[in-house]
Amino acid sequence: MLLSEIFTHVAQHVKDLVLQGDQACEIHRLATIQNAHQGDIAFINNVKYRQYLEETEASVVILSPDLAEGYKGNALITKNPYLAWAFVSHLFDTCRSSLPNQIHASATIAESATIGENVFIGANVVIEDHVKIGSNSVIKAGTVIEENTVLGEGCFIYPNVTICYNCVLGDRVTLHPGVVIGAEGFGFAPSSKGYVKIAQVGRVILSDDVDIGANSCIDRGAIEDTFVGKGTKIDNHVQLGHNGLVGENTVISGFTGIAGSCTIGNNVVIGGGVGINGHIKLHDGVMVTGDTMVTHSLVEPGVYSSGMPVTDNRTWRRNVVQLQQIDKLYRRVKALEKKIDFEE
Amino acid sequence: MLLSEIFTHVAQHVKDLVLQGDQACEIHRLATIQNAHQGDIAFINNVKYRQYLEETEASVVILSPDLAEGYKGNALITKNPYLAWAFVSHLFDTCRSSLPNQIHASATIAESATIGENVFIGANVVIEDHVKIGSNSVIKAGTVIEENTVLGEGCFIYPNVTICYNCVLGDRVTLHPGVVIGAEGFGFAPSSKGYVKIAQVGRVILSDDVDIGANSCIDRGAIEDTFVGKGTKIDNHVQLGHNGLVGENTVISGFTGIAGSCTIGNNVVIGGGVGINGHIKLHDGVMVTGDTMVTHSLVEPGVYSSGMPVTDNRTWRRNVVQLQQIDKLYRRVKALEKKIDFEE
Amino acid sequence: MLLSEIFTHVAQHVKDLVLQGDQACEIHRLATIQNAHQGDIAFINNVKYRQYLEETEASVVILSPDLAEGYKGNALITKNPYLAWAFVSHLFDTCRSSLPNQIHASATIAESATIGENVFIGANVVIEDHVKIGSNSVIKAGTVIEENTVLGEGCFIYPNVTICYNCVLGDRVTLHPGVVIGAEGFGFAPSSKGYVKIAQVGRVILSDDVDIGANSCIDRGAIEDTFVGKGTKIDNHVQLGHNGLVGENTVISGFTGIAGSCTIGNNVVIGGGVGINGHIKLHDGVMVTGDTMVTHSLVEPGVYSSGMPVTDNRTWRRNVVQLQQIDKLYRRVKALEKKIDFEE
Repeated sequence: MLLSEIFTHVAQHVKDLVLQGDQACEIHRLATIQNAHQGDIAFINNVKYRQYLEETEASVVILSPDLAEGYKGNALITKNPYLAWAFVSHLFDTCRSSLPNQIHASATIAESATIGENVFIGANVVIEDHVKIGSNSVIKAGTVIEENTVLGEGCFIYPNVTICYNCVLGDRVTLHPGVVIGAEGFGFAPSSKGYVKIAQVGRVILSDDVDIGANSCIDRGAIEDTFVGKGTKIDNHVQLGHNGLVGENTVISGFTGIAGSCTIGNNVVIGGGVGINGHIKLHDGVMVTGDTMVTHSLVEPGVYSSGMPVTDNRTWRRNVVQLQQIDKLYRRVKALEKKIDFEE
Repeated sequence: MLLSEIFTHVAQHVKDLVLQGDQACEIHRLATIQNAHQGDIAFINNVKYRQYLEETEASVVILSPDLAEGYKGNALITKNPYLAWAFVSHLFDTCRSSLPNQIHASATIAESATIGENVFIGANVVIEDHVKIGSNSVIKAGTVIEENTVLGEGCFIYPNVTICYNCVLGDRVTLHPGVVIGAEGFGFAPSSKGYVKIAQVGRVILSDDVDIGANSCIDRGAIEDTFVGKGTKIDNHVQLGHNGLVGENTVISGFTGIAGSCTIGNNVVIGGGVGINGHIKLHDGVMVTGDTMVTHSLVEPGVYSSGMPVTDNRTWRRNVVQLQQIDKLYRRVKALEKKIDFEE
Repeated sequence: MLLSEIFTHVAQHVKDLVLQGDQACEIHRLATIQNAHQGDIAFINNVKYRQYLEETEASVVILSPDLAEGYKGNALITKNPYLAWAFVSHLFDTCRSSLPNQIHASATIAESATIGENVFIGANVVIEDHVKIGSNSVIKAGTVIEENTVLGEGCFIYPNVTICYNCVLGDRVTLHPGVVIGAEGFGFAPSSKGYVKIAQVGRVILSDDVDIGANSCIDRGAIEDTFVGKGTKIDNHVQLGHNGLVGENTVISGFTGIAGSCTIGNNVVIGGGVGINGHIKLHDGVMVTGDTMVTHSLVEPGVYSSGMPVTDNRTWRRNVVQLQQIDKLYRRVKALEKKIDFEE
């Protein structure tokens, strides 16, 4: 691909993009700045990689005006090199571009289903009654879409995904392998004869441009719907419990578990391994760092944390003894203060 | 459905149920008390929702005698509205009731398998040699059941589940999408040439009325069996390691990891994100709150916890410094006490 | 199987193995020392099980020279009974040995794929263009292998696994059910119009003898490859983020989440539920205990930990109050020290 072609594509999205150097330079591959060779395009997003700029063999580098000063090589210059890189990367993503418009003979598609134009349906896909698949969508091998579920246009569903009945996906939704959308929420009423299941009759609604990572689960609502807003990105191994409402452009990292009936705002960022109790609200713009245990609502924007970071095992073992009786330590300090008649 | 019909069904299970109002009232849908319209049935399980009772448009409300005082609308009255709701909900669970008695042509069923009466087998299901499926069971699309495994009656297996060889499921077991039953336990012997796998020749036994949530894994035993007792309910993304023994009517919430050879009693309740070390015992009736790190057996009933709840990031950063040297703080307090000759 | 046959097989791998007793003794089954019956072989790996040795009905016991002193029964004696057990266990692992050399008629195999000799391919397996499967490999039902992916010899892929495009697996790699290899890494560039996906064009490389547990995910690299070294064993529900580099003979337990661009050394042991932040390095031989929150690189061998172990709920509730203001407690102690003019 010519550098001029790359420039034309990216400049549609990145307004301040400037091309420096040889427009006719041919680019074959994406590479890191450290390991790039001739024919590669790379980027620098961080001043600490400046050293690599002098040595790189990359044919083109994407970088900021600051870093570009004094750089004589071919370059795409913008204040947001990472965003430019995102658009460049799409040009080299052969996985998505190479799929033919075909429905595999081994797919099982109900007669009552409606399939849009230019749709790819892979081997052994199962599409049940009254399902609708929007145009330009891709459903890869082994995925099961249960009855009455509706997918918008341009969705990309990887292999071995399960989308249960009655769910609604907007346009350009991506589900990675092993994702489960619309499993029954975890609801049981205790009785003298054991737990009795509460039927979960709500749906899951995923809005436009939502991404759900491999093996993550979004449970259907108990009565009303579980909902994920536009542009929200969810990593692998995440659980969104029944009745959860997640806003727009929110990011949820891997192994985060969100119990039932939570409300997560817009532009929230949640780190990995976070646990959020049921019925909790996170305000728009809240950031929760990794491994935090969220036991109450966070009603102001800001950064929130908990958890104890790693130490060597010997120190940890000693500290644990004291951590588990810190209340006693507090009382001893209080008694000392009283003894010497001292108030902080 | 007429209110009288609903009443008749639920009163079989909820002995104190009383119908107030118009028996011929027609009900079409489940709804929350806040958002109910005409034709809906709703419930109140909590005094704090009393306000909605005055405004609700629900045609019928399920509620307790206390809340029913002064309420003039149609009602189902019982001391356990949530349990009554559970039985009402089953009447509106179209997903389960609408499946035909059929075996899909694309299913692969070994000749040596035994399929009971009135069984649904979905598209692309694979049933291997000597498998037995009890009557009235449902096996949805894409599920694989390996050789010699036995399912009881009335099981409901969602899509894309894997049940490995030689396992045994009782009656009315529900497995949600992506569940893995009977994967090899994690057992390796170290050697000078690297780790050597220990074959895992035990089985998984799931008793009657067990529920396993989406993408959860129950590993097979190393020598003897991994076992889950009657009526136990397991949420999504749970791991039960090899040789685990779980009692009856126990509840295990999402992202809980139970390492190998644990014994979990009856009527235990485990919150989300709990980690339980290997070879640990939890006594009957133990409750473990979310995110707890269980490093030793809990041999008395009671509530157990650990973990540090969320604070603002700035406070957390300061606290972490002290948390990681709390043993030193303890020593300073001790020295102070000695200095002023003070014993608490 | 005769004891002499078992001895011959195991002695190939365990050089100090000695057979005591009746070589012609017939063994039918593996068993625990506690529950063994006639015809069973059992092992003791721990002095605390010595009591069972006197009572066991096992026909053969594998044990150490120490424990063998005074034991008159049939025995296999070695300093490493657990390793001997590993090799014995393979002889009784019917699951792997009984598979015929066959390709199921319902499998979908691209014409451009290359299948080695003596390969088992189960029902509904999907093998896409240009895939190569090495000889003696097993691909069980419902697994999907996307285009250009290469598997070595003797791989064992359980049902419902997804291996995405362009990945490379060495020889004797085992993937348990529900595993996802090569899903897109979690990379998005923020923009004024929402997050823009970064195409993930790297691959996943799994070296010889790697094991990946059920429902674990290894994401493909953003630009370069995600890599797992020889003999590394990964448990269920593990996440290795994009660009991760894991060394040889490393063990990673369940629910461990490793964020992007981490470098994990050789012979590392990571407990369950560990969270590792992005761009972190773990030195060769590091051991991280369960539930640890790894927020910085661990550049020396050693054992590392964090987390607060379980206590009763009442104590925990009191402690939490103090934990969340430990910095204040520290200041009070400091003030006390100053007041009485005392330096530890």
